[in-house]
Amino acid sequence: MKIFTTVEDMRAYVKACRNKDHAIGFVPTMGAFHKGHISLMQAARKENDVVIVSIFVNPLQFCSGEDYDRYPRQTDLDRRICEAEGVDAVFNPTVAEIYPKGFDSHVDQGELPSKLCGPFRPGHFRGVTTVVSKLFNIILPDAAYFGQKDYQQTQIIRRLVQDLNFDIKVRMMPIVREDDGLAMSSRNVYLGPKQRREATCIYRSLLRAKELIAKGENDAGKVIQEMRREIRKTKGARVDYLAITNAETLESIREIKGKVLIAVAVRIGKTRLIDNILLG
Amino acid sequence: MKIFTTVEDMRAYVKACRNKDHAIGFVPTMGAFHKGHISLMQAARKENDVVIVSIFVNPLQFCSGEDYDRYPRQTDLDRRICEAEGVDAVFNPTVAEIYPKGFDSHVDQGELPSKLCGPFRPGHFRGVTTVVSKLFNIILPDAAYFGQKDYQQTQIIRRLVQDLNFDIKVRMMPIVREDDGLAMSSRNVYLGPKQRREATCIYRSLLRAKELIAKGENDAGKVIQEMRREIRKTKGARVDYLAITNAETLESIREIKGKVLIAVAVRIGKTRLIDNILLG
Repeated sequence: MKIFTTVEDMRAYVKACRNKDHAIGFVPTMGAFHKGHISLMQAARKENDVVIVSIFVNPLQFCSGEDYDRYPRQTDLDRRICEAEGVDAVFNPTVAEIYPKGFDSHVDQGELPSKLCGPFRPGHFRGVTTVVSKLFNIILPDAAYFGQKDYQQTQIIRRLVQDLNFDIKVRMMPIVREDDGLAMSSRNVYLGPKQRREATCIYRSLLRAKELIAKGENDAGKVIQEMRREIRKTKGARVDYLAITNAETLESIREIKGKVLIAVAVRIGKTRLIDNILLG
Repeated sequence: MKIFTTVEDMRAYVKACRNKDHAIGFVPTMGAFHKGHISLMQAARKENDVVIVSIFVNPLQFCSGEDYDRYPRQTDLDRRICEAEGVDAVFNPTVAEIYPKGFDSHVDQGELPSKLCGPFRPGHFRGVTTVVSKLFNIILPDAAYFGQKDYQQTQIIRRLVQDLNFDIKVRMMPIVREDDGLAMSSRNVYLGPKQRREATCIYRSLLRAKELIAKGENDAGKVIQEMRREIRKTKGARVDYLAITNAETLESIREIKGKVLIAVAVRIGKTRLIDNILLG
């Protein structure tokens, strides 16, 4: 497995792949791999000739006061996981390589980043669309893989690809969960044992919503009320938002019909966790 | 010569070129060709295997109240000029093809667009960086050609290419002038005969600056004062700005030294004209 730390070296490898007409599957990550990441690598492995994984904790997508400094970093372990999953190349640049002195361009979107997590994380999605645009231009992948846990991010990337004419297939893979339902996240390591148990209220609230809707409830307000009740049973959990939206536009809906996203963001202590399910 | 109006068809052609390992030279334009555009095509022809010219009057780079509706359009003539210059393919999409319903992504920059023309044309450069990013992703050129008349635009594109990691050489070609010195511009057709004569004050002011500096004047304020005096001799001319800047950052300087841009924007009636020279 190759490891590249400079844009120039990464590009040379990509060019060689393209000269051989190899389809490139790309998994952009911030490292600290869990089974969710691995599922993306496996999908990329299955669907492409070459798999490239980027590991880059992107400062631009952390807001002030967020966890950029303490975000888990485990480069050696991550590289070994990539190797074990048959990844062909890892792109693991420094911050200075991605944002050299004088860097001053940004990619942004209007509507989608203003929904759900947007108001709670000002600038976050601008950081995501900017770094992903850069990575797309460096890697020139045929397909890029994202996890459904970050559903809003995936929708934004889909919009980005369409709007800026990236010739890239966006593939979204299902959420991978712990045995008790907690969505896998690199931030789960922040949770103490008690918090870890408390965090299960998130998925329970989603299951409760699913159950109500399966029973015929189509009033989004009522479903959200029940979700809130479920989460309130857990003392340590504070809700950032509970939302039922059109799965395409991420706009809140009153009546549950068609393809619907149910999304939750909750804080357990200082740790912000998100989860969602798609229905319809 | 091929003419493509859809992204899909243009892309298929680009892919065929890349499969043959042909270097692509790209000239993005809004049509209404003059000798300046032709010089870009000729440079692209000389330096590449394949030359692609885009003709697209980009609504996003016109501010409200500007001349989007009356901007000169002469598609048949433009295509014939491309053909005569040995252009291989013209990309001539509709507005709906470039900005379909739901389009909502933008590429922007902080510093460079705030200089010179920026305050007079709010949103203009955002429109430029957005459309150019799209065109770059569609055409995937090896080199892209821009005219020095739009020096600020070229600097912004250079920054864009660096910042977003486009693997593209940016080539800037010299200003082409009429016999009396007026910089060629598609907007010159707006000028009546009297205005056309008045417009020559712009280049005269630049020559006056050059002369003063050649004589040893290095106080930018004094040079600008003389330029203003030169332009004031022409009743119909209103100055938007006269600037002497660092050629790299476009920041105004007091002392003329190093690589310097002298830039002018003037309105003759309703027509806004720009010009510049580089020194050092």
